[in-house]
Amino acid sequence: MFADLPSELPAELVHVLVETPSIRIERIVSTGQRSDAGFWYDQNESEWVIVLKGQAELSFADGTPPKSMCPGDHVMIPAHQKHRIEWTSPSEPTVWLAIFFP
Amino acid sequence: MFADLPSELPAELVHVLVETPSIRIERIVSTGQRSDAGFWYDQNESEWVIVLKGQAELSFADGTPPKSMCPGDHVMIPAHQKHRIEWTSPSEPTVWLAIFFP
Repeated sequence: MFADLPSELPAELVHVLVETPSIRIERIVSTGQRSDAGFWYDQNESEWVIVLKGQAELSFADGTPPKSMCPGDHVMIPAHQKHRIEWTSPSEPTVWLAIFFP
Repeated sequence: MFADLPSELPAELVHVLVETPSIRIERIVSTGQRSDAGFWYDQNESEWVIVLKGQAELSFADGTPPKSMCPGDHVMIPAHQKHRIEWTSPSEPTVWLAIFFP
């Protein structure tokens, strides 16, 4: 999970760890990436995501307060709750573990 | 995830973080606990589990080599693959994140 962490990436690095008809588990590494201006994720699946390393901030379109995330912080994002990555640490890789399910 | 970690527990501490018809996500804290002699977990669900803190060793009844686990190490345990917790660190809490699914 923490091996081979690049210090700089042109885009987020996504590695699918498990994929079955019922769930998908991904490791995502960010190195300062954030969602494009005006972009919102609007997903058909629910997502539970935890930051394991680094730091990040999520924001939500529905008025839910922005969430600053340090290692160990996790959040449940129901399907179609629009959200975006407002910020990830530029000074170290941020490692996310994301679980997607119906 | 890493808050309020007890240094000693009479038994493993299990906290269900998410439960839906399709998945269950648990935080499990061990403080030296291991499976009872001769006991094997034999689960109807598949389990993907990662150690986030501490150290542990799993073993398997089917001849799969034992797996020593440090933070970031993860393992997929298909339903009914018999396994047991051979050892968890007695010197610090071990934090597991376990995802169960059909």
